[in-house]
Amino acid sequence: MDHSHIFIIVIELMGTIAFAISGAMVAVRCGMDLLGVIVLGVVTAVGGGMIRDIVLGNIPSALTDPIYVLTAVIVSVLVFLLVFFRRKILSDGFHPLYARLIEAMDALGLGIFSALGVLTGIRNGHLGNTFLLVFLGTMTGVGGGMLRDMMAQVPLQVLYKRIYACASIVGALSCTLLYPRFGEAVALFVPLFLVLIIRLLAAHYRWDLPRIPRE
Amino acid sequence: MDHSHIFIIVIELMGTIAFAISGAMVAVRCGMDLLGVIVLGVVTAVGGGMIRDIVLGNIPSALTDPIYVLTAVIVSVLVFLLVFFRRKILSDGFHPLYARLIEAMDALGLGIFSALGVLTGIRNGHLGNTFLLVFLGTMTGVGGGMLRDMMAQVPLQVLYKRIYACASIVGALSCTLLYPRFGEAVALFVPLFLVLIIRLLAAHYRWDLPRIPRE
Amino acid sequence: MDHSHIFIIVIELMGTIAFAISGAMVAVRCGMDLLGVIVLGVVTAVGGGMIRDIVLGNIPSALTDPIYVLTAVIVSVLVFLLVFFRRKILSDGFHPLYARLIEAMDALGLGIFSALGVLTGIRNGHLGNTFLLVFLGTMTGVGGGMLRDMMAQVPLQVLYKRIYACASIVGALSCTLLYPRFGEAVALFVPLFLVLIIRLLAAHYRWDLPRIPRE
Repeated sequence: MDHSHIFIIVIELMGTIAFAISGAMVAVRCGMDLLGVIVLGVVTAVGGGMIRDIVLGNIPSALTDPIYVLTAVIVSVLVFLLVFFRRKILSDGFHPLYARLIEAMDALGLGIFSALGVLTGIRNGHLGNTFLLVFLGTMTGVGGGMLRDMMAQVPLQVLYKRIYACASIVGALSCTLLYPRFGEAVALFVPLFLVLIIRLLAAHYRWDLPRIPRE
Repeated sequence: MDHSHIFIIVIELMGTIAFAISGAMVAVRCGMDLLGVIVLGVVTAVGGGMIRDIVLGNIPSALTDPIYVLTAVIVSVLVFLLVFFRRKILSDGFHPLYARLIEAMDALGLGIFSALGVLTGIRNGHLGNTFLLVFLGTMTGVGGGMLRDMMAQVPLQVLYKRIYACASIVGALSCTLLYPRFGEAVALFVPLFLVLIIRLLAAHYRWDLPRIPRE
Repeated sequence: MDHSHIFIIVIELMGTIAFAISGAMVAVRCGMDLLGVIVLGVVTAVGGGMIRDIVLGNIPSALTDPIYVLTAVIVSVLVFLLVFFRRKILSDGFHPLYARLIEAMDALGLGIFSALGVLTGIRNGHLGNTFLLVFLGTMTGVGGGMLRDMMAQVPLQVLYKRIYACASIVGALSCTLLYPRFGEAVALFVPLFLVLIIRLLAAHYRWDLPRIPRE
């Protein structure tokens, strides 16, 4: 296993941890029990990558390499324990912090997986196909959170959140364009920061896309 | 590219447009912003075909050929702009028309994709397998709308609408039976009109299948 | 077709019937019409196996062999007719029985499909990969019910029910461990009874995993 491969795995584990936290916290919020929290954490963390691998016709890497699921399970259990024993504190005015933590973790996972989806597509020999790569990146980025929201039956972030899908597309597109000239590291970190900045600015300044009020 | 291939692409684009309109209008109704409208329009338009291609073990054609996604994006943006600038009008008594337009577009897409699903199955060498072809056609027909309703978290048409799945099955079955004797064109248009007629008659005469009232 | 193959098919049909009943009854409860009941019965019965086959890169066996879908259709129609003509009785105090029947059928299907998912993975040459096999078994076990709940838009059993996923994991793991030493029959029946016992004890004694109350 060469250096660049280890580097990718470390980044992928970071994304897994971020998405597992966001999934587990949504589950906690919905009043699920420990198993529910673990299931939702795992689905959020590995769901996007599984969709990507299935679309590419590969057996999902989450199934052949246990490390991602194990990481997501451990993280979900930790989140559960933390909230379980700190419930008191959480209910005494820390709610905005709580919501912000979900949002930050979600933005981090979104950035990491949007870029990793593109790189996986390139590794599968689709370097020339910009459109396919951007689609793969976006699907990997938003897929886990989409499954999370559909399973928890809360409004889908990708449909209602300020420029959520948009951030993922920008991340995937920049990764696709940067890779041929600057290589893997740049094609990973620039999109990652782009997505993070877009999401956090959007949340902070409450950027709104035009929207038609509900009838 | 031969004539028959162009012909299929034109029909497929018509289905894409019809489903993108229906998806975008559901999104507008749920109060989503521009990006949400685009995402739901695209998912509705290409979702059924993607499920079909994944089941067949192919990379989804929506990912290798950008024209379908691009069409769905443009249509969704147009729907959004139209509703955005005509909101006043829409809220002044045009609601029945609005609901009827979603229904008509949905019926058109249902007919087109039910037939195209069967033809794709035949192109993949499953001509003899009637059951598989009907299943593929139905899945392609109802898949996009199913994903749309699951993502928007509105009641699934395929589960609650008068003979919705039924129309799709009739379309797929007639396409399967007509193709060997009459070729592609007949196997496309007859099912298309059958589905349209069934759906519109069902809507007009409020045909009801037996139903057990909610407890 | 040898003996062991027929034996597997019989067990698979039992699981199909159990899950079709549970799916059809959820549909009846939600006030769906006959077609909706059939669609939900079929999805619940063949959904888990379809996800498993797609993950493994095979064309879903439910599509190549009509017997499973046909069985699910017939069972769903029977459930519908039974409830339709016995509505009176059902509404006069039989509700607990009704809920318990869904639960028992669901537990039976869960046990059967958790084990069958593992055996399918072994038949596809993944004997050595315990993690993959357990994941395949669990996905086959909980997948149909998950799709059912997502489509019917009721809270997902796998997320909220006492040790639901847990039972499936125990079933899949025991099947994986028993197969190499004791062969197919033991690897099917022991997990099946384990899952049934866990689920029924959990329901009876109202075993609860730790849970954080909804805010």
